[in-house]
Amino acid sequence: MPRAVDYEEIYRRFRSGAEFALARSISLIENHTAGYEDYLHRLYPTARGVPRVGITGPPGAGKSTLVGRLTKLLVEQNETIGVIAVDPTSPFTGGALLGDRIRMDDVGGLPGVFIRSMGTRGSLGGLSQATRDTALAMDAFGKDRVIIETVGVGQSELDIVGAADTTVVVLVPESGDGVQAMKAGLMEIADIFVVNKADRDGAERILREIRAILDLKPMAEGEWRIPVISTEARANKGVDKLLTAIEEHESYLKDSGVGKHRRRERAHGELKNLLERDIMELILSTAGIEESLETAVKSILSRNSTPYREAEKIIQHLNLHR
Amino acid sequence: MPRAVDYEEIYRRFRSGAEFALARSISLIENHTAGYEDYLHRLYPTARGVPRVGITGPPGAGKSTLVGRLTKLLVEQNETIGVIAVDPTSPFTGGALLGDRIRMDDVGGLPGVFIRSMGTRGSLGGLSQATRDTALAMDAFGKDRVIIETVGVGQSELDIVGAADTTVVVLVPESGDGVQAMKAGLMEIADIFVVNKADRDGAERILREIRAILDLKPMAEGEWRIPVISTEARANKGVDKLLTAIEEHESYLKDSGVGKHRRRERAHGELKNLLERDIMELILSTAGIEESLETAVKSILSRNSTPYREAEKIIQHLNLHR
Repeated sequence: MPRAVDYEEIYRRFRSGAEFALARSISLIENHTAGYEDYLHRLYPTARGVPRVGITGPPGAGKSTLVGRLTKLLVEQNETIGVIAVDPTSPFTGGALLGDRIRMDDVGGLPGVFIRSMGTRGSLGGLSQATRDTALAMDAFGKDRVIIETVGVGQSELDIVGAADTTVVVLVPESGDGVQAMKAGLMEIADIFVVNKADRDGAERILREIRAILDLKPMAEGEWRIPVISTEARANKGVDKLLTAIEEHESYLKDSGVGKHRRRERAHGELKNLLERDIMELILSTAGIEESLETAVKSILSRNSTPYREAEKIIQHLNLHR
Repeated sequence: MPRAVDYEEIYRRFRSGAEFALARSISLIENHTAGYEDYLHRLYPTARGVPRVGITGPPGAGKSTLVGRLTKLLVEQNETIGVIAVDPTSPFTGGALLGDRIRMDDVGGLPGVFIRSMGTRGSLGGLSQATRDTALAMDAFGKDRVIIETVGVGQSELDIVGAADTTVVVLVPESGDGVQAMKAGLMEIADIFVVNKADRDGAERILREIRAILDLKPMAEGEWRIPVISTEARANKGVDKLLTAIEEHESYLKDSGVGKHRRRERAHGELKNLLERDIMELILSTAGIEESLETAVKSILSRNSTPYREAEKIIQHLNLHR
């Protein structure tokens, strides 16, 4: 039997500001180690609701470099920062690949900066939930801001970014034309667009295209106007403009009440996801469920029945009373 | 009250091979129009389980052109083809953007080719389920093969591609370095890699990198060796090599039993998703659930409780008996 975790001791260290206790706390929560729910419950009241900035975009857009530059700038303003790097684990290396780690380490040495890499595996309850819990722990620890970096432009990345208050979408001249980029659902989530590697061929074109598409968007009075910022993260150009835009967006969220609304929606979504998960767990632990699923799969594969009908039958059989 | 759908008549036309009846059938199923489950049930037995090829990759990789070329080649071999183009709907235009449509139309005119565009909105039950149902309808209609094209490299796109037997991941020299591309989880889903636009700078490098990473993969006896194919879809170069690889993969699936295993897994996953959906629907229709959710959200936002605890409380309150 594994030794019981001494949550009391970890919490004491956490409160005293020891970063290894933050790291340990995140691991316990991420792995759903027995007792994590009570522990999380204990952390909740001390979270201040600090700003969460999500940075997303396709592979190779220079997000890590940008996050590094941005973090450095914030540290110079005496902010303490938690960085969550959501890095899909390679199936072959069993861990995040080397490239980003090295760049991240430059930043990790800065005072008040705590970096956490997360893989797509090993997060019970899903990556999106693990990201939210980690951000909460960083907030409760006392970080002034949480930056969440994700790679990719798909739905699950958008879900992860959904844990953020302000979402920055990073593209590069090589991202294809602006219209194509918009098709990947980026427009719906971006609060700020960045065209990084803006010294490269095609930067002007993609900047122009994104702006043209944004101009088509009908704007309500007082609505946030999505800025499009060009940066060269490696040369440290434009990062100050990005920070200004982020801070302006944070003011907007506060003044307009949109921020409050978003956090409400976020809590609602989170709750529903957990409900869904818990109920499925309950159902999959029902006696005889494996056999029912097996029988159903056989009927579907032999095309004697549809998945819809089989799902219905199983639910009827479960006889959930309300 | 809307007039009841005449499923009998639609089915008759469907069976007689009228493509507009296929289109109508897909719409009815996608919109979950009353009676769609029985209709789907009727289509199931006539599906032959024809090969489904998924083509995915980042925006701007030239997937549509490649699908077009591939389809043309298959038509020359006297195959009939169903193409599903999963095109996230732009929030501003309310429909798929023009670019791909035009290119697709060139293919749509070919004999025996039926193209269906799907947006991320308007598919009740989720895009992934709608894609599976559409593929099933095309199969039941008599198409010899279904090609599913999705944009993006995220989890939900991977779920959509999960409806395929053979998954082709398309990259371009501009996709960033091969290592970066691998990080987006592409390695886990690719049965075949394509580097399109192979005449461009950097093509050799990305080809080399992908091959080097694939070489690191421990291979079991008789396991499928993922080929890496370079194409120039626009110039119609390399498309024949791609088709050969697809056909080889299909033989592998059949001979090794892996195909059977995958279809089994697919049915299992589909069933679980539908179960989850149906149960959530049941729960969200419970009397008083909205109030419970509201109260829970308030506790979470005021940090008096965690989403985990609130989800648990709601489930206890629902008193699901087993």
